[in-house]
Amino acid sequence: MAQSSKLTVPSGMRDFLPEQVAKRNYIFNTIRQVFESFGFVPIETPSMEYLSVLSGKYGEEGEQLMYKVLNSGNFWESIQPLSAELLNSKKLTPLICEKALRYDLTVPLARFVVNHQHQLQFPFKRYQIQNVWRGDRPQKGRYREFTQCDADVIGSSSLYYEAEFIQIYQMVFERLNLTEYQIIINNRKILQAMAEKLNCLPQFKEFCIAIDKLEKIGLSGVQQEMQKRNLPLTTIQNFEEWATLSGPVLETLPRLKEKLSHSSMGELGIQEIEQVIEILSFAQNELKNIILDPLLARGLDYYTGIIIEAKIKNASVGSVGGGGRYDDLTGIFGLKQMTGCGISFGADRLYDVLEEKQLFPLEIKPNAQLLILNLGKETWPIIYPIAQRLRTENIPLEVYPQSEHKMSKQLSYADKKKIPFALIIGTEEIDSQQWQLKNLATGEQQKIQTQELILFFKNRKAS
Amino acid sequence: MAQSSKLTVPSGMRDFLPEQVAKRNYIFNTIRQVFESFGFVPIETPSMEYLSVLSGKYGEEGEQLMYKVLNSGNFWESIQPLSAELLNSKKLTPLICEKALRYDLTVPLARFVVNHQHQLQFPFKRYQIQNVWRGDRPQKGRYREFTQCDADVIGSSSLYYEAEFIQIYQMVFERLNLTEYQIIINNRKILQAMAEKLNCLPQFKEFCIAIDKLEKIGLSGVQQEMQKRNLPLTTIQNFEEWATLSGPVLETLPRLKEKLSHSSMGELGIQEIEQVIEILSFAQNELKNIILDPLLARGLDYYTGIIIEAKIKNASVGSVGGGGRYDDLTGIFGLKQMTGCGISFGADRLYDVLEEKQLFPLEIKPNAQLLILNLGKETWPIIYPIAQRLRTENIPLEVYPQSEHKMSKQLSYADKKKIPFALIIGTEEIDSQQWQLKNLATGEQQKIQTQELILFFKNRKAS
Repeated sequence: MAQSSKLTVPSGMRDFLPEQVAKRNYIFNTIRQVFESFGFVPIETPSMEYLSVLSGKYGEEGEQLMYKVLNSGNFWESIQPLSAELLNSKKLTPLICEKALRYDLTVPLARFVVNHQHQLQFPFKRYQIQNVWRGDRPQKGRYREFTQCDADVIGSSSLYYEAEFIQIYQMVFERLNLTEYQIIINNRKILQAMAEKLNCLPQFKEFCIAIDKLEKIGLSGVQQEMQKRNLPLTTIQNFEEWATLSGPVLETLPRLKEKLSHSSMGELGIQEIEQVIEILSFAQNELKNIILDPLLARGLDYYTGIIIEAKIKNASVGSVGGGGRYDDLTGIFGLKQMTGCGISFGADRLYDVLEEKQLFPLEIKPNAQLLILNLGKETWPIIYPIAQRLRTENIPLEVYPQSEHKMSKQLSYADKKKIPFALIIGTEEIDSQQWQLKNLATGEQQKIQTQELILFFKNRKAS
Repeated sequence: MAQSSKLTVPSGMRDFLPEQVAKRNYIFNTIRQVFESFGFVPIETPSMEYLSVLSGKYGEEGEQLMYKVLNSGNFWESIQPLSAELLNSKKLTPLICEKALRYDLTVPLARFVVNHQHQLQFPFKRYQIQNVWRGDRPQKGRYREFTQCDADVIGSSSLYYEAEFIQIYQMVFERLNLTEYQIIINNRKILQAMAEKLNCLPQFKEFCIAIDKLEKIGLSGVQQEMQKRNLPLTTIQNFEEWATLSGPVLETLPRLKEKLSHSSMGELGIQEIEQVIEILSFAQNELKNIILDPLLARGLDYYTGIIIEAKIKNASVGSVGGGGRYDDLTGIFGLKQMTGCGISFGADRLYDVLEEKQLFPLEIKPNAQLLILNLGKETWPIIYPIAQRLRTENIPLEVYPQSEHKMSKQLSYADKKKIPFALIIGTEEIDSQQWQLKNLATGEQQKIQTQELILFFKNRKAS
């Protein structure tokens, strides 16, 4: 409790300074524009949902990490009389907290689709860029409040959408100048066929948990993990030949196809990937960054078809997004047979990658572009209307507020605020009807009139 | 608790469908662009703050309406042993809740300024568009989660900024085509001088609470209220002559000046308003919508100088924003002498007004602009690259996912989704290398090539 008396933001949460907001908006706007160009439309859901909507959807760990909101009013009296067995946190929580903060955007989407099913047209292509909250242990790249950017298609089983999602990842990364990316794909059906071949289908879940750790703990680590989880010896012995298959999709497909022959489940999984790749080929999409990794599992309980993960190479954060096909999104809320497919971008991780690789465009600056100096009341009839005129053209500017301050003080204000230009209008300029525009980086000054000034800043913005 | 088992959003909170999101963004973008044109820069703060940061800042009622977030983990054990006197909600809350959701954007701004004072340049002009949460009784136009759009200048006492805020209100309303607005202004110093003249300065707070109700309960209602609050008889008797002063600023100023003569406090208040009006006149601002109302109080404890309120005439919601000068924003957190001035827009109320007056531009549509029909696999080598080409130009489009569906079914999909155009490419079109663009509202069809298609949609967007 000592923490709470400190004047600071809660642990794992962040203030964003103007430059950070501008950089974050650059990421959000890029993603939004790509989503929209694929015909996705935006929705928003409340920050809070009833606990009963969120409960039981994220497993034991998720349940604990979820932020619960205390009922307002006299919560204490509403649970009287209090029996001894209620006196523990787990039992008390649902009695004093009716609501919780959004843990992801997927369960709220499912609730939204059920609530609004009669207003929506299916396939419903929605995107959603909103914050989620998780009381996770904070660490580099992991925050307790962060922004998810999700796109999902609900109500169509067409593999065309899997292809779209791969295209979306590619288009976003290219627009962010992140040329060194990988889109890793797999199919749950391939995982199942592999488990079948390795004699561990009955322990499919244990098998996936173990192989998901390959990147972290290596082959022998995974084999030890399998031993610990009591997987059959044949699985452990024969796993190695599967662990080395991952590679560019066009090279890996035939090899994997061969290994999975005579498994109808495996062949189905392969066919689905072939169809997606065919669509991408017709769209003349770059395929070399698409990796087929038969070990990719990602939250195995959830996906039923193709699984996607997006990574940036040579970056300190690994995955910057993922997704896939899930066959029963809304079944938890009683609406059956709504298949879905979707992806998510981790905007905070993308931020870290762009910062690390110095890929934010230089022109992302939240600052005003111009400071209009205030050199005396006699200039007000000139400078105030000019300021208003420029604002109608959306040129971000400040007028210096105090005419009694010296010009040098006013210029140094612009400097400190990183405002790149100053407009100087004194009595001399008013006589000649020509203003002085000073470039504060170079010290250069040029004579200019209002109309030219507008063009100058409009061109600067466009460049 | 019955509520919590329903599948719905929590009371007072809202889902936003695509069209609503697009309309809300139209409002936010308009406000944002105006803020930026005045040189305000964006910041963001976390949704949660430590309870100790928020506590004691919003009065008894605010404290109750604030949403508290339950500590994670075993909150119950951390308060053992529990003495009998702790067993009530008020005392228990701070022990089991360390954090609360943001109640407004002003206290977080004060905390932000103190935390980052060495990174900021003063006067610091920040804007912030974020959600706030209040457990208020939901009613028309009042929600438990809503978006505030605030702009504040911290660290300058220049009255130039009061003028800017009035200009900002005017520019936003004009851009939203809300021509019938009123900017109502007053000054706390005028309120004080009035209380002095009416012999009730020692009961200033009671006086303000009573007069703030004039619009709701009328003159005799206010007089009864004054009686109830034990204000002197002379106040009650002489109040009427002040209650009728409100009017356009240029007409009201001289009348009010006369009534406040010989009050140094009153004269100071009048002078401040005169200076603001002078700046607005130099800027060639429209003054007829600016009303001087000597009874405007708005959260009297807070403002120390000029007070501003923005209203839309002939609308079912009254105030759509307000603000003013406050002399000691950060004093509560130990940083003295930081004067501030700021305003807020109630975006949710603006939404209701624009809807009511049917002022949302028709072109605000979240939908895709084009559906590319999918008339067989043999068209894929043509349609997929066209789709990609158009997307690089940010034209929002969908490709119909299933080639096995009939053309009529595909067209009716576009219709239902309110997609205005369809691109038809069959074998015939491929032979002639001319596509068919169908306007789904008129049924008209035109032959078109890819490059023309791009221009067609780019021009449509711009118009």
